[in-house]
Amino acid sequence: MSYERENIKQMSGYSSGEQPEDGNTLKLNTNENPYPPSAMVTRAIQQFKPTELRRYPPPTAATFRQLTAKLHKLDVDNIIATRGGDELLRLVITTFVDPGEPIGVTDPTYSLYPVLAGIQDCPLVEVGLLDDWGLPDNFADTMNSNGVKLTLLVNPHAPSGALLPIQTIRELANQLDSILLLDEAYIDFVEEDFDTPSLVQDHHNLIILRTLSKGYSLAGLRFGYGIAAPQLIEPMLTKTKDSYNLDLLSQRIAEAAISDQVSAERSWQLVIEERHRLQAELAKLGMTSPASQTNFLLVSSPVDAEQLYLRLKDRQIMVRYFALPRLRDKLRITVGTKAENDRLLSAISEILDSY
Amino acid sequence: MSYERENIKQMSGYSSGEQPEDGNTLKLNTNENPYPPSAMVTRAIQQFKPTELRRYPPPTAATFRQLTAKLHKLDVDNIIATRGGDELLRLVITTFVDPGEPIGVTDPTYSLYPVLAGIQDCPLVEVGLLDDWGLPDNFADTMNSNGVKLTLLVNPHAPSGALLPIQTIRELANQLDSILLLDEAYIDFVEEDFDTPSLVQDHHNLIILRTLSKGYSLAGLRFGYGIAAPQLIEPMLTKTKDSYNLDLLSQRIAEAAISDQVSAERSWQLVIEERHRLQAELAKLGMTSPASQTNFLLVSSPVDAEQLYLRLKDRQIMVRYFALPRLRDKLRITVGTKAENDRLLSAISEILDSY
Repeated sequence: MSYERENIKQMSGYSSGEQPEDGNTLKLNTNENPYPPSAMVTRAIQQFKPTELRRYPPPTAATFRQLTAKLHKLDVDNIIATRGGDELLRLVITTFVDPGEPIGVTDPTYSLYPVLAGIQDCPLVEVGLLDDWGLPDNFADTMNSNGVKLTLLVNPHAPSGALLPIQTIRELANQLDSILLLDEAYIDFVEEDFDTPSLVQDHHNLIILRTLSKGYSLAGLRFGYGIAAPQLIEPMLTKTKDSYNLDLLSQRIAEAAISDQVSAERSWQLVIEERHRLQAELAKLGMTSPASQTNFLLVSSPVDAEQLYLRLKDRQIMVRYFALPRLRDKLRITVGTKAENDRLLSAISEILDSY
Repeated sequence: MSYERENIKQMSGYSSGEQPEDGNTLKLNTNENPYPPSAMVTRAIQQFKPTELRRYPPPTAATFRQLTAKLHKLDVDNIIATRGGDELLRLVITTFVDPGEPIGVTDPTYSLYPVLAGIQDCPLVEVGLLDDWGLPDNFADTMNSNGVKLTLLVNPHAPSGALLPIQTIRELANQLDSILLLDEAYIDFVEEDFDTPSLVQDHHNLIILRTLSKGYSLAGLRFGYGIAAPQLIEPMLTKTKDSYNLDLLSQRIAEAAISDQVSAERSWQLVIEERHRLQAELAKLGMTSPASQTNFLLVSSPVDAEQLYLRLKDRQIMVRYFALPRLRDKLRITVGTKAENDRLLSAISEILDSY
């Protein structure tokens, strides 16, 4: 006898990128930041008193929320702290979308979205992106006419790296009948001045997702946050999130990390520089990619992409291959340090020479 | 305009016990363990390399699950690691109960259960406990005849501290058509030999909840686990939990804590000894309580219980008062250290003398 709900039985779970345990593997498959977290993180861990773990943690991570509100020149009521961006995505669905109500996404998009929609038993409305990974003009109309309750948009886009301009975000928020969740997991690697948090003051259907996983080199910490009008934050904060969703030590580490913008910005700058170099060097090998505002490149492969993925894996270099319509001739490659990127480049060069 | 789902709009969130920030308050209101966590926890934090946080953590906490499986003489497929017991409760509902399907509980019970049922939009079937806090004979029949999909049972019971015998658990698991979730948050403080994990081998509708919050002095860590047949564990592990639900540092700390049974057992023994002493001393003051197998006592108050709660609070002593039918003449008091219990006892003695 199976006790699973029918929608859970029918669905597949999220498949995360492989996490090899050995020390020699070059991991360019899950968009982790190649630079270490802030020295303030180290200090926060060193100064932590283990006996403090005896007690329940602050239930809403008030200190972290205050620091983050200040960073974005917003109020603490505009912020919810979550266990990675994943928890925010789940909470937004749980709080605002009834089972059976449609959730809107682009195609392609972050592969977790359909999984989360499946758990809530919500159908997807998918709109294909243009050839340049931009949004078609009828995007908002399609969402509205399908009765979409929540639109999930990752910007900069994954897996292409393309960035929608702020003006488009504004227009979308105005046009959409639904909540617009703007997933800014990669926003820290955008080169231009790009300040979206202030938009939540005018757009009360906009929720912005941020994470410390990429920009703050803390994928292992599971810490993110949402930015929105207080009426959207409040039910998630007081009703639908787990009572104590963030442990005490994580809160301290996240407070340290968000307070050290200088260290984080240094890593963003280094990633941006290496992104340009890697893109140019890959192009010389016949592997082109669209302009990326993230810490990864979506690279066209001059040979069978899955083969190239496997041959890199043989050499202990992990990149990401998606067996999906518009992606199966491409590889998604995370930008590493200079030395890591050099190792990747010479491996690709050798493999291509053998064809 | 409100975007909240109707069921979320209608519900109230969980109210956790107060968490005063000052150092002088005696916290006997949230059932935390009064003794510090294992020295192995301290070592795990000291030995942790912050650069490891750069990468995503092991997605299923495999090492912790292996250690825990070994502890309970079960297989790793019988275990899921979760962010506190709370996450397990949520996952069980999300995975196995459709919106609209009833969830069964006792009355009174852990006050989080109705909140979680509300989030999933599930009605509650409540069965009142007997005067001695035992289950009425028709409990399973009532659940079955109401089409209950999931029965939530906290054992030892909160807030009474009463323990149902293993034989009753076996019978319930046999009789119930639903999944039986046995919330063993307080199991470590049971005096008799009480080994339920092995029951999951025969009872494929049984899920046991354990937490490191109480027994391992790690409420601030948010780490718990579920024990069940693999067919119940698997969909939660691979489909419905957040992709990386447990951060790396928490996993290391939990592995250290679960490996040091000696230290944990020492705290359990001390709590049990103090529980007996506190119960006897309170009885001398006219405040009786039923036998408790937990780290708290449900104490009858000879004066207005809410008044007593408030007057203790004036003296910076926090205990828990529930304004509920069978509880409003009682206080739930966490067992502290000897010194803490002495401070409580003399405060109560002084307050009662003033009546």
